[in-house]
Amino acid sequence: MRTDPRGTGSRTFGTATRGETVPTVPPASKAADAVDVTALLERGRTLATPVLRAAVDRLAPPMDTVAAYHFGWIDAEGNPADGDGGKAVRPALAVLSAEVTGAAPETGVPGAVAVELVHNFSLLHDDLMDGDEQRRHRDTVWKVHGPAQAILVGDALFALANEVLLELGTVAAGRAARRLTTASRALIDGQAQDISYEHRDRVSVEECLEMEGNKTGALLACASSIGAVLGGADESTADALEKYGYHLGLAFQAVDDLLGIWGDPEATGKQTWSDLRQRKKSLPVVAALAEGGPASRRLGEILAADAKSSDFATFSEEEFAARAALIEEAGGREWTAKEARRQHAIAIEALDAVDMPDRVRARFRALADFVVVRKR
Amino acid sequence: MRTDPRGTGSRTFGTATRGETVPTVPPASKAADAVDVTALLERGRTLATPVLRAAVDRLAPPMDTVAAYHFGWIDAEGNPADGDGGKAVRPALAVLSAEVTGAAPETGVPGAVAVELVHNFSLLHDDLMDGDEQRRHRDTVWKVHGPAQAILVGDALFALANEVLLELGTVAAGRAARRLTTASRALIDGQAQDISYEHRDRVSVEECLEMEGNKTGALLACASSIGAVLGGADESTADALEKYGYHLGLAFQAVDDLLGIWGDPEATGKQTWSDLRQRKKSLPVVAALAEGGPASRRLGEILAADAKSSDFATFSEEEFAARAALIEEAGGREWTAKEARRQHAIAIEALDAVDMPDRVRARFRALADFVVVRKR
Repeated sequence: MRTDPRGTGSRTFGTATRGETVPTVPPASKAADAVDVTALLERGRTLATPVLRAAVDRLAPPMDTVAAYHFGWIDAEGNPADGDGGKAVRPALAVLSAEVTGAAPETGVPGAVAVELVHNFSLLHDDLMDGDEQRRHRDTVWKVHGPAQAILVGDALFALANEVLLELGTVAAGRAARRLTTASRALIDGQAQDISYEHRDRVSVEECLEMEGNKTGALLACASSIGAVLGGADESTADALEKYGYHLGLAFQAVDDLLGIWGDPEATGKQTWSDLRQRKKSLPVVAALAEGGPASRRLGEILAADAKSSDFATFSEEEFAARAALIEEAGGREWTAKEARRQHAIAIEALDAVDMPDRVRARFRALADFVVVRKR
Repeated sequence: MRTDPRGTGSRTFGTATRGETVPTVPPASKAADAVDVTALLERGRTLATPVLRAAVDRLAPPMDTVAAYHFGWIDAEGNPADGDGGKAVRPALAVLSAEVTGAAPETGVPGAVAVELVHNFSLLHDDLMDGDEQRRHRDTVWKVHGPAQAILVGDALFALANEVLLELGTVAAGRAARRLTTASRALIDGQAQDISYEHRDRVSVEECLEMEGNKTGALLACASSIGAVLGGADESTADALEKYGYHLGLAFQAVDDLLGIWGDPEATGKQTWSDLRQRKKSLPVVAALAEGGPASRRLGEILAADAKSSDFATFSEEEFAARAALIEEAGGREWTAKEARRQHAIAIEALDAVDMPDRVRARFRALADFVVVRKR
């Protein structure tokens, strides 16, 4: 793992302005050119959503309503809403991975639904633990329905995830549930790390990557293999697909960390300098702090003062822009962009270990490319 | 379901004093006489505890420490403690149920551990949701380590429960995990009901029994069958054992509800009139309120006034004693004692549907008898 953010290579992204931050994908993935990623994402969403809604409908009142609010299917008053379902990368991966084994994409649907349920269980609990009041432009569940409902409905979605898989009653479903449990444990470990890092002045690049691997990598790993497992793939195939998904998750998170500072608010729907306002120790920040040059040291002093400042909430746009400029000057932006490309390359390479139809491989590549070029 | 608390029969328990409240077991279970229940409980504890501790040790810091505190293995300062492990009825049932199939009791151990993990996941979350500051004579986890750790470690124990079963990698383990998931969903449903009942003036006897079936019956049902499932029992055997455990759980809870009002504080370790101080709508209370006679109506008026009273916290011993006397006068105590015996009888009868060695049947009966005669 490279920890020197100056590392090698030129500062390709050093002069990019907001909204143009995300690294260009190297032209390695030519086969992916022919793939319609939008259609691929839409397929996952179309296959998974009805089954997800039917699963959530099983919850006893008022948990069904609270969950429907969380998913954006109804508003706080209970009226139907057309919620932002997110990018739907995970369901797309889950149904695609079923095709590795020659099975129909539908074979991956219970896996897609289980992964989405686990993801949303963690969002419900993390928002409460972190005191986050907004998600996807709406008040979070604990803010609207109270902390007890956020805990309870999170628990219910977690249980439902296992139910959706185990009720299939097959040996493959048991193996899928086993992998989902491993991913869930990693998610929880990642949240434990995230909480403990908040109370620390310094977090190393390695620690940040480990935390992001747990919080983002593990569940994308599971999403990328669970359909294949349900389709009867052997352990080594599932492991290789997990490797693809894990590194794709790290690439995804690196891009998220770039967008969290330099993303275009119009595209991300977040405030300018969003992660800086939340004092997040994201990859660009920890990489900049690890670099050790003059800008890095100055950044360290400023962030240490910020941590004690009682005026932080009233900081101006310019003050955050100055911090972002120091992170960039210390190489944090460039290092993170390169890290996204590096993780993307490892993900693509992991696919080589798996025998699969060319069409399916091209789709995995296209989804990986999408993850690193997205603007939101 | 009988809802008239006067029902039939004489008020056998109407004159019992505190500490003598629990119903005598009818002499139906003669074979149980020869069984050493203490040894049976100790066997479950001895087999399950080391595996439970090894599972909890897998948690990343600080979750391992928080969990160890919750289980009573260390104190709040991290020093080793000899915690009250509870009655250990669930592990005893889980290892006993393995013997139904002719398997060794050890076969049931992963099931015993998984059930204990789910039980403790629910305690961690319920204590936080309910704002309970004490459990087993100690400060609860959220009180000592904060709400975030209570949520996180609860989540981790829930995930670990599935892990302990699914890592066995057998078809039987998948079936066991399926049943555990069903029980977990019922537990969560029960907690949702418990929370919603708190905000209501009236709860019917049926609603109370349904909630107690979810909160206590479902997991005892799982404990009573999970060892058998791991030992390869067929579905109808597992279902019959679940029926035994479910009704045993309802008997258990009815006795708990009696002890929560009339239990001897020396034996229970709880305050006098514990459940009345917590305004719990337990079985004796809802049965007394449903009876409809003069004492029942007077009780209803008093409890309605209590709900609005700002002096409730300073009520004297005599004020709670007066409420307990009204509950008893309205038949709530007698009805609950009879309900415990009724559920005990259904549990014992459910065993008839299962072919098992006489020795094993005698032990199931002895455990059922213990549950209804216990004083703590």
